[in-house]
Amino acid sequence: MMITTTDPSTGILTDTDIEATDDSQVATIAQTSDAAFRVLREHPRAWRAGLLRALAAGLEANRAELVAIARTETGLVTARLEGELTRSVTQLSMFADVVDEGSYLEATIDHAAQTPMGPGPDMRRMLVPIGPIAVFGSSNFPFAFSVPGGDTASALAAGNSVILKAHGSHPLTSRLAFDALNTAATAYGAPAGTLGIVYGQRAGATLVADPRVAAVGFTGSLATGRILLDIIEKREQPIPFYGELSSLNPLVVTPGAAAARAEAIAEGLFASVNGSAGQLCTKPGIAFVPAGPEGDGLVATIAALGHGAAPQPLLNSRILDAFSDIHGHLLDAPGVREIVASATGAEGFSVGAAVLEVDAADVTPAIAEEAFGPLIVLVRYRDFDEVARALTAVPNSLTATIHAEDDETDAIATLTDLFRDAVGRLVFNGYPTGVRVSWAQHHGGPWPATNSLHTSVGMTAVRRFLRPLAWQNAPQSALPIELQDSEAGIPRRVDGKLYLAS
Amino acid sequence: MMITTTDPSTGILTDTDIEATDDSQVATIAQTSDAAFRVLREHPRAWRAGLLRALAAGLEANRAELVAIARTETGLVTARLEGELTRSVTQLSMFADVVDEGSYLEATIDHAAQTPMGPGPDMRRMLVPIGPIAVFGSSNFPFAFSVPGGDTASALAAGNSVILKAHGSHPLTSRLAFDALNTAATAYGAPAGTLGIVYGQRAGATLVADPRVAAVGFTGSLATGRILLDIIEKREQPIPFYGELSSLNPLVVTPGAAAARAEAIAEGLFASVNGSAGQLCTKPGIAFVPAGPEGDGLVATIAALGHGAAPQPLLNSRILDAFSDIHGHLLDAPGVREIVASATGAEGFSVGAAVLEVDAADVTPAIAEEAFGPLIVLVRYRDFDEVARALTAVPNSLTATIHAEDDETDAIATLTDLFRDAVGRLVFNGYPTGVRVSWAQHHGGPWPATNSLHTSVGMTAVRRFLRPLAWQNAPQSALPIELQDSEAGIPRRVDGKLYLAS
Repeated sequence: MMITTTDPSTGILTDTDIEATDDSQVATIAQTSDAAFRVLREHPRAWRAGLLRALAAGLEANRAELVAIARTETGLVTARLEGELTRSVTQLSMFADVVDEGSYLEATIDHAAQTPMGPGPDMRRMLVPIGPIAVFGSSNFPFAFSVPGGDTASALAAGNSVILKAHGSHPLTSRLAFDALNTAATAYGAPAGTLGIVYGQRAGATLVADPRVAAVGFTGSLATGRILLDIIEKREQPIPFYGELSSLNPLVVTPGAAAARAEAIAEGLFASVNGSAGQLCTKPGIAFVPAGPEGDGLVATIAALGHGAAPQPLLNSRILDAFSDIHGHLLDAPGVREIVASATGAEGFSVGAAVLEVDAADVTPAIAEEAFGPLIVLVRYRDFDEVARALTAVPNSLTATIHAEDDETDAIATLTDLFRDAVGRLVFNGYPTGVRVSWAQHHGGPWPATNSLHTSVGMTAVRRFLRPLAWQNAPQSALPIELQDSEAGIPRRVDGKLYLAS
Repeated sequence: MMITTTDPSTGILTDTDIEATDDSQVATIAQTSDAAFRVLREHPRAWRAGLLRALAAGLEANRAELVAIARTETGLVTARLEGELTRSVTQLSMFADVVDEGSYLEATIDHAAQTPMGPGPDMRRMLVPIGPIAVFGSSNFPFAFSVPGGDTASALAAGNSVILKAHGSHPLTSRLAFDALNTAATAYGAPAGTLGIVYGQRAGATLVADPRVAAVGFTGSLATGRILLDIIEKREQPIPFYGELSSLNPLVVTPGAAAARAEAIAEGLFASVNGSAGQLCTKPGIAFVPAGPEGDGLVATIAALGHGAAPQPLLNSRILDAFSDIHGHLLDAPGVREIVASATGAEGFSVGAAVLEVDAADVTPAIAEEAFGPLIVLVRYRDFDEVARALTAVPNSLTATIHAEDDETDAIATLTDLFRDAVGRLVFNGYPTGVRVSWAQHHGGPWPATNSLHTSVGMTAVRRFLRPLAWQNAPQSALPIELQDSEAGIPRRVDGKLYLAS
């Protein structure tokens, strides 16, 4: 079966020269990946850091072609794609630094000692890689959450091999990115199978069921996530599934913030909703705005921005259809007022921004459905009790955002308390989109935002693809270098005390 | 329904005065636990460390009564129970040290900075507790993996409340341990519901389904683990299940080790198999012994020890029945030779040690079934290729043990390589039972040993009951003290660099 590709700007579908990967090909790829894993993990950390930097350089060397092909397959604008590729490149090189620094291994040594339970043996522990990792690319980030994305970078950094499932919305971009990475890996001396790629939905399912696959990284819809989880539950050996699934990302503007900077907030919020045609997992989909004049001004500014914004193509027809459906449901919900109607009639999969308004008292689960696209529901509230009540209808999210003035300390405390159990990241006086790649980042949240206690963005993302292994009374020769008696050049905990690398 | 208890030494079953917890009582307990959680997490770490130490003192104060009642309900010998209680006490106090030290929070600060993707906001991250934790006590450790066990200690250390499911084999011990902990918690000033307890199988299932429960810690059979996993999969919001399920714990004696110290190994191995009537998750259930005279001597010594050992009561009739069944299956498997027949005829649930022998060529999955009790299968091998082939029939385990002489470096490398993907702990020239509680311990392993990348023993066990939370551009007042600008007295990573507490 031939894989197709569509230009979202025109809606025209064409065949590619890529064949869907069949079951026996998936098995061969998994086999090769498993063999590569066994070679990869024998290499020292410095080698692996070098591999990650070589991959970063390989992407950079193909920048122009990658951005051009992604432009055609996603309809995303060039500046966004340039930035996203920079993100992928930077991410690879930051994970190289993580590997060099070595804290992520959690290297720990307890020397033999007398304990309250009698003589304790010498114990040493560190984290080790787990095997081939299946990475499912997302539709909305052709680079940063797809073939050359954070899951790939963190799985490789941990010492694993990676098998990519190319997203059906950008197969040519996926192949080009894969070729760029794979060529760089080969030139660096990495074993064949360090990276693999499969195409087609069936191949993705076959991959998740393959006994050699040790974990799955997934960014996508709740529905597809559930299908993959069902496959995992049927495996003889269950494996971790790290799914980033669905998120409404509520935002609250306090009365003080609305009074002080309604226009700035309106502009920032609208940019966060409308950028990349609203197709970001951290897009604020629901914003609480005070009732009354300051709130009215904020709404009016957003309305003006919405009316003035040009339609943008969505990534594919499924996303367009889902957007239209959910937009329709939201308009039908009791109490909802249409502030900006999504412009229609443009070519391809284009839609304009949509702005809806509802009173807090009318917020129900029907209003808290994620519309993947440039749509926001503005909720007008009179007090934080109304916000609290309305939030009971809002599912858990990746993020929540609070706009408040510094002197509104009670409001800040109340809202922080409302949100902290429901999200993975609390944003103050900013916007949740534009997720910084750094050590302190966390991209995750209670179900249905994710199904994990781990992050898929930031330096600690490597933890998902590692497991602890302990050595008891091992001879030095049987220990990894990081656990041998000699100074390992990494932070280690020895007899309970943390030591920095000297 | 009244909960019953049985003395394994006599087999006599009696009613207790404990009623099975009904569904509405479980709901009330979960509600109270959730309320307690919200209070607990507001307390500073020093307060929580104090709570853990108070619980340790509370157990110690009830030592004599606890050991006496556990003696009656488990049939385990007093010295073992004394040691186990010491383990529980020590564990609580070691987790108090973990809380004080603060590394476990992974406190991380990235100041606002220019990045390759543009200006990056101030990001701060640490781990936070997740809510009420359901802890299922095991049959075989009435203290260390039951009410006052490692799951309870680590869940509380992380800042959560705990709801215990008392094991049906020792309800009175569970209640007394709960009362000791609960009295100490109340005296310390902990909120009502910090600890809760439920009795009866149905109550356990109801607890796992309760929406307020945030995670489950479980030590028990694969079959019960699967039942609980099924309940979790039907929840609206899935939660982590940390199950420690089944483990055969292979052990290999090299030709060099057999030649050098057959008798010492035989004694150590038999003690590890027969101690606590073989009812330890880390009991070596299969041992590879060289064919030929040195191996013969080792087998003869084990046989003599087996014949000389007195029968011991198993924990309950289910375990006795399963032991007899599996013992029978093993004896029926092709090629199996009976070296020591399990002595019978004793009172109650007593059994004697059983020793079987088989050639490596005859090892099949039928021989690799875990017999929970004092039974070992000795596998005679001619070379490591035979060991490798036989191991393909052995499921993954918590541990693997290698007895080898120092100069057998090739053998050590070969065996380490055979085992490292299949277990969580590699033991050299020792025995896997007697799991040291320390920072470097890891008690876990690939499925079906556990279903987790985390440990249930050792100081890092707290990680199971925590999740990351990030704060973006937060005012100081909205941050936990550990992430505020001022020195927090704990190790922190700041702008990518790890700093010790000053």
